[in-house]
Amino acid sequence: MSIERKFLFESLMWRYATHAFDKNKKISQADWDLVEDVLRLTPSTFGLQPWKFIVVQNVELRQKLLPYTWNQSQVLDCSHYIVFATLSQISEAYVMKYMKKVSDVRRAPLELMAEYKNKIMGSVQGPINEANIIHFTRRQAYIAMGSLLTSAALMRIDTCPIEGLDREKYDDLLGLKGTDYRTIAAVACGYRSSEDRYAKLQKVRFEKSEIISHID
Amino acid sequence: MSIERKFLFESLMWRYATHAFDKNKKISQADWDLVEDVLRLTPSTFGLQPWKFIVVQNVELRQKLLPYTWNQSQVLDCSHYIVFATLSQISEAYVMKYMKKVSDVRRAPLELMAEYKNKIMGSVQGPINEANIIHFTRRQAYIAMGSLLTSAALMRIDTCPIEGLDREKYDDLLGLKGTDYRTIAAVACGYRSSEDRYAKLQKVRFEKSEIISHID
Repeated sequence: MSIERKFLFESLMWRYATHAFDKNKKISQADWDLVEDVLRLTPSTFGLQPWKFIVVQNVELRQKLLPYTWNQSQVLDCSHYIVFATLSQISEAYVMKYMKKVSDVRRAPLELMAEYKNKIMGSVQGPINEANIIHFTRRQAYIAMGSLLTSAALMRIDTCPIEGLDREKYDDLLGLKGTDYRTIAAVACGYRSSEDRYAKLQKVRFEKSEIISHID
Repeated sequence: MSIERKFLFESLMWRYATHAFDKNKKISQADWDLVEDVLRLTPSTFGLQPWKFIVVQNVELRQKLLPYTWNQSQVLDCSHYIVFATLSQISEAYVMKYMKKVSDVRRAPLELMAEYKNKIMGSVQGPINEANIIHFTRRQAYIAMGSLLTSAALMRIDTCPIEGLDREKYDDLLGLKGTDYRTIAAVACGYRSSEDRYAKLQKVRFEKSEIISHID
């Protein structure tokens, strides 16, 4: 069984960066549980999952975040507001925690995974060096973002990815200071207002021939 | 109409980083057209789409890429091999090309979009400064990757994201030297071999409580 092609295409056409959410419409618990599954099942390099997703439902906190989000109304009006944070460093302790998880889930002795662990450590301390590790982890979070935006569209949940935010202030307000996690972006989720004029705008994309080439 | 929750969940569980592709199974043209639609419809900051997707079907070229991809067999055995490349800089000419597209699609006079253009230029030349622009465009490409991996799973097409490649050599072999585009990653697409032992491994993910927090 696979998805109907027309349905996938129409879902992607239906999606747009929602500017005005209907503040009275809330995502059901069953749908939200699945959104969290989508985030959790996101693939990542080495399986490291170097992220945290902070679902901010508290109204006062959303109001505090608002001025540090260019006053975009989505912060207040969306049903669920997810802040994406990623690791600013990948410590040996973190990698060990992950290896322990692999060992538990796959019932493989930790001792047998020394090579795998060394490969990861060699990579995050080598090719992906310290100055670039935060860019590496941020890219990973964007895999989650892409999967979320597409999955939500299929569920007919509207989204708006938000990069225009003061990451330092977010870290402060979300209690990330002093942890290894740093805010990178946010995604507002909910349902479009019938008055969102952006819903009617034509989608602007380069032609396939401009962005896709074939070497046959 | 929205997707059946169970089907979305099962599709994400079905997905895994495919190690062994069945080299005899090819993606149909109708499916492949949709994969390209998925890539094309990916959202990006300001709508800039700072990417190119190079579909490498030429066997000789794939063989040349192989040693610069840690000899991962997916490069040769997959049905379709997509290399992701992103802009290393966002020039004013590029932004103008995009504005022209917006103007064409939405039938809005270019002159009326000066403010929008200035906002984009101010951002790519300011907050997203030169040293970081390549990280910015790479993140964008990972939205496409996330959307692709999830969409393909729904289509029951297998994928393997590949970051372990020599980007310089790829740029050389793909003729990107002298352009503004740089290789960032690749995704092999096709169908799993019935002998891929990785297909049977348990998926390893942290618990929701470890990666998702709620501020109510």
